[in-house]
Amino acid sequence: MFTEIIVIGNEILTGHTLDTNSNWMCKKITAVGGEVRRITKVRDEISEIADVIRNALSRRPDFIITTGGLGPTFDDKTAHALGVALNKKIVLNEDAFRMVQRRYRELYEQRAVDTPDMLPERKKMAMLPEGATIIDNFVGTAPGIQITVDDTVIIALPGVPAEMKEMFERAVLPQIQKKTEGLVFISKEIEIDLHDESVLAPIVDKVMQKYENRVFIKSHPSTYGSGIKIKVEVRARGKDKKEVSELVDNALNDVSKEVNKLLGGASQQ
Amino acid sequence: MFTEIIVIGNEILTGHTLDTNSNWMCKKITAVGGEVRRITKVRDEISEIADVIRNALSRRPDFIITTGGLGPTFDDKTAHALGVALNKKIVLNEDAFRMVQRRYRELYEQRAVDTPDMLPERKKMAMLPEGATIIDNFVGTAPGIQITVDDTVIIALPGVPAEMKEMFERAVLPQIQKKTEGLVFISKEIEIDLHDESVLAPIVDKVMQKYENRVFIKSHPSTYGSGIKIKVEVRARGKDKKEVSELVDNALNDVSKEVNKLLGGASQQ
Repeated sequence: MFTEIIVIGNEILTGHTLDTNSNWMCKKITAVGGEVRRITKVRDEISEIADVIRNALSRRPDFIITTGGLGPTFDDKTAHALGVALNKKIVLNEDAFRMVQRRYRELYEQRAVDTPDMLPERKKMAMLPEGATIIDNFVGTAPGIQITVDDTVIIALPGVPAEMKEMFERAVLPQIQKKTEGLVFISKEIEIDLHDESVLAPIVDKVMQKYENRVFIKSHPSTYGSGIKIKVEVRARGKDKKEVSELVDNALNDVSKEVNKLLGGASQQ
Repeated sequence: MFTEIIVIGNEILTGHTLDTNSNWMCKKITAVGGEVRRITKVRDEISEIADVIRNALSRRPDFIITTGGLGPTFDDKTAHALGVALNKKIVLNEDAFRMVQRRYRELYEQRAVDTPDMLPERKKMAMLPEGATIIDNFVGTAPGIQITVDDTVIIALPGVPAEMKEMFERAVLPQIQKKTEGLVFISKEIEIDLHDESVLAPIVDKVMQKYENRVFIKSHPSTYGSGIKIKVEVRARGKDKKEVSELVDNALNDVSKEVNKLLGGASQQ
């Protein structure tokens, strides 16, 4: 049970925009017991987007979630690229057409301004791969796209964070949760009084072995001034929240004890 | 002339850590006229890291830059994965060994603490693919790795931002700059008084056509409250800084004029 994320947009690759969408999704997916195995960021080029989608599909993930490239401008190419990747015709999706029509009506009514009912640029957002269903967008105007290929559910969401987040929580996360069947993921971390990962490493190995790899322990070094600060994170997955939480606490305790033993027994590391 | 970036680490995929390294590198590379075409983020699994490296190599980029996975702990697997990807033996690199030794000596001297000269975990950071050269690390302890395959220079940097940044600016950016031969990239943006990309899209098309695609124009919508705010970015690359700057200014001016014409001629969009 795993997910891949694809982030689409030149603005990400030029560095103009810091992508925070994929990190936000990773947190949400991890919290419900899911697992993100790969994130790929790609330019607004149909052949490249299609290549990334096909490549992800070859690993048979449960979900492929894309973000970006669903809007009305010429460089919004995700729907078209999906068609190329899946070898499906791009057709007018009636649900999408009605949704886009409704959204423009609502947005212009809010501002009490007239607008043509449907412009070619708006209709473009309703041109989707054959067989796709839509995910309604209550924030912006572009429909999300969902289409299943073998055992993989592909979901395309807009790149504007407020739109993506609302659609993800309402229409994507419940699907992932259903697949993880109440699995929980717990992660806790502490900062330790040791400043050298090479000295910590044998402790991490020892504690992971004690728990037969049911916990995963990772050290996160960072710099402050000219020094190195280390946080130790312990994480585990499981069905029973209390059990997983205790497992994580116990392992974290063991790491602490071993570090203190080392610090007490030797000169400060 | 293009670059691919590979970000390595479970902490990125669980959402524990927001990767800002790749965005920082993208900005630096773009600023010297380079182009990043793909960013892939992958877990600490040798076979997956090797797969991502081989996949990137198949597109024959000028540079592949990885970040993360060079430290002393069991889950730091980048050097090993590079060996697998390139079918090269992992051997003790003498330069790396001396560098690691020197760095631990320096760091412990700073704190006036004794430490063994070389631990297995430290030696691990000097086990590199055959034929690799090292990039010195003046902030942390892990050597960077450089190795050339056909026309692609592969460079592996640590994931700790302070280490990565110092090494990138000193040892990587000059190599990229040499390849772009003084190409400049200029990007400017304005916020417009139009709140609908579907109305803006034909203007973008028109101005891009006027400049025969020598400028690239992208609209960046974002939400504020229940409204939509649009920034228009114009960017171009070229040899002559003044010329490129004028080109961008002119195109931006044309967009402004067209937007004002529309807003003057019709009800406010």
